[in-house]
Amino acid sequence: MFDFKYYAPTKVILGRNTEEKVAELIREFGGTKVLIHYGGGSVVRSGLLQRVTETLDAAGIAYVTLGGAVPNPRLSLVYEGIELCKREGVDFLLGVGGGSAIDSAKAIGYGVANDGDVWDFYDYKRKAAGCLPLGVILTIAATGSEMSDSSVITKEDGLIKRGYSSDYGRPRFAILDPELTMTLPDYQTACGCTDIMMHTMERYFTQGGNMEITDALAEGLLRTVMRNALILRDDPGNYDARAEVMWAGSLSHNGLTGCGNDGGDWMTHKLEHELGGLYDVAHGAGLAAVWGSWARYVYKDCLPRFKKFAVNVMGVSKEGTDEEIAERGIVAMEEFFRSIKMPTNLRELGVDPTEEELAEMAHKCAVGVGGAKGSAKLLDEAAMLQIYRASV
Amino acid sequence: MFDFKYYAPTKVILGRNTEEKVAELIREFGGTKVLIHYGGGSVVRSGLLQRVTETLDAAGIAYVTLGGAVPNPRLSLVYEGIELCKREGVDFLLGVGGGSAIDSAKAIGYGVANDGDVWDFYDYKRKAAGCLPLGVILTIAATGSEMSDSSVITKEDGLIKRGYSSDYGRPRFAILDPELTMTLPDYQTACGCTDIMMHTMERYFTQGGNMEITDALAEGLLRTVMRNALILRDDPGNYDARAEVMWAGSLSHNGLTGCGNDGGDWMTHKLEHELGGLYDVAHGAGLAAVWGSWARYVYKDCLPRFKKFAVNVMGVSKEGTDEEIAERGIVAMEEFFRSIKMPTNLRELGVDPTEEELAEMAHKCAVGVGGAKGSAKLLDEAAMLQIYRASV
Repeated sequence: MFDFKYYAPTKVILGRNTEEKVAELIREFGGTKVLIHYGGGSVVRSGLLQRVTETLDAAGIAYVTLGGAVPNPRLSLVYEGIELCKREGVDFLLGVGGGSAIDSAKAIGYGVANDGDVWDFYDYKRKAAGCLPLGVILTIAATGSEMSDSSVITKEDGLIKRGYSSDYGRPRFAILDPELTMTLPDYQTACGCTDIMMHTMERYFTQGGNMEITDALAEGLLRTVMRNALILRDDPGNYDARAEVMWAGSLSHNGLTGCGNDGGDWMTHKLEHELGGLYDVAHGAGLAAVWGSWARYVYKDCLPRFKKFAVNVMGVSKEGTDEEIAERGIVAMEEFFRSIKMPTNLRELGVDPTEEELAEMAHKCAVGVGGAKGSAKLLDEAAMLQIYRASV
Repeated sequence: MFDFKYYAPTKVILGRNTEEKVAELIREFGGTKVLIHYGGGSVVRSGLLQRVTETLDAAGIAYVTLGGAVPNPRLSLVYEGIELCKREGVDFLLGVGGGSAIDSAKAIGYGVANDGDVWDFYDYKRKAAGCLPLGVILTIAATGSEMSDSSVITKEDGLIKRGYSSDYGRPRFAILDPELTMTLPDYQTACGCTDIMMHTMERYFTQGGNMEITDALAEGLLRTVMRNALILRDDPGNYDARAEVMWAGSLSHNGLTGCGNDGGDWMTHKLEHELGGLYDVAHGAGLAAVWGSWARYVYKDCLPRFKKFAVNVMGVSKEGTDEEIAERGIVAMEEFFRSIKMPTNLRELGVDPTEEELAEMAHKCAVGVGGAKGSAKLLDEAAMLQIYRASV
């Protein structure tokens, strides 16, 4: 067991119409001039943006708006947001949407609170000394960004996708109204469930140091998401299932499911990041497409964890050798992905990279992690390339 | 499923020698003049108090000290602490010890930050509008006060024991060094495990509205505590087991295991509070002594939960009727209590109340909860008396 810090100060409000509380929450956390940052048109079309601005108007809280955050949110919009905040004297950020809008808002917050180029933080050059306070109205259960310390931004020049983590970026509050997620396309719902599971699985497949209680919480969370992902596949309007998945999304990435481990193995995310940077695929689907190849490449070096996962999460038979049990767990996970229409390889994901493109992704991934990385198994560039090849 | 708020902003630092970080944490949360509040002599004898004051001296942080917080902490010491803080210009509280020292510190914090009599809050007369910021070095895993919003104080006049809950009272940080709990007598360790379990069980046995993910987390937590309580019974110096129980203690009472329920059924705690007020018994042991009688009185009115508990937590056979399964779960829980040398009735607890004393406790309990209370089953004074009688 490793020493750990757990710090998840976000005030979460979950329930129907909880977005009505946005003005009082902004005030509670000291906001007087707000940048409402959102993504595409759905927040506008659904009327949510209007409801939010009406609530702020009624409460006498000033605001400016900035839309346009796209999946794999772009650095240029972050720069634009920073300028806008400085010009308008914004002292509070409100991210409305999914992970893209929230991550983009976090990056804007770092840019406003720190001098110099905000990309430095994402380029591992220096650490932020603060962040503008941030609140969130979540419309997609997926990235867990509403309680997490992390954000992912893509620099257009070279399509470089990088994450940065800092407690300063943890939102002050997160409004979770499960009804806001009901209009999502089924594919996005399934992608979200996959992303949520992966945040917990990447904390689970590590070398040693695991805590029993952390495992118990992680396994319970994974089983809950799987069960409710299947409910939502058949009944997308099921409020309770939406709520289960939404809350699981926040818990899966706020640190709770990693307490006592070595920090986690984030290589599935890293491998997907290069895919996402190059092809702009849906993040959750990209994760599902590479996970099986990653798991088969590493599981023999992390056998006790893959065995425990197979039995406690996937519920497979305990017969046979540890390797057989572990393999059965990987197969069961892939079957689950297929059952919610997630891809289990790049072909099913709809991309067909050339050998050169695979090599480019492996190279960029290796550079991004500083040469080699991974806890379940340390992966260097050659290993990354092998996993990419196996996932074609 | 009920709407919920989840807010557990405490920064937790778990690991060996983490108390060395106390000065930097106090500074991080803005403290410049500290009241170190602790309980009996063990904090002094173990050298912990000296290590803490040396750390503050080295960091140039001023402090005053106040010891003497006893189990079922007293109002008179709270008043003394309030006066001391005002006189000395204290702006940060550091509770060092178990729930008694922390709860007493919370009450002092309310008293300093609010005008009027601090007992008003515990007497349900008004609500606190703030609390002096508070940090914690925990030496007993039990009450969960290090992350919770609650505190319990006993007024000497009439031995009235009352709890008060407010987000203002949640500690800013909690230092959890499992090694600090190793010198506890086995009985206190077992009492702590019981208290931890009860905090989660009282959120579990409720009418409707439960979330699947909350249940999964609660069940995993309970199984972990039970397993590690048995390890500690046989091997009190087991660091990992100490850490599992310590972290479970914080999670069991920070709100996590109650998300989406109706607020919980706290009647076992309420029934024990009267016992504790009158006889000064160990809190955990008092809970174990009345739980079985409470459970047998209410379970038929809350059968789905008792059945789920029996199967998922106690691992009993699913054969027979729901009532039989539920009863088997209650018996298994009592067997577990006995296995860690906890009492399952008042006689085993070492108290032998007269019928008049039972009636007095039932009356005070009913008055304390405002007539009748309970989610699994609503209990009035007559019901409370029946449970007390059954627990003799």
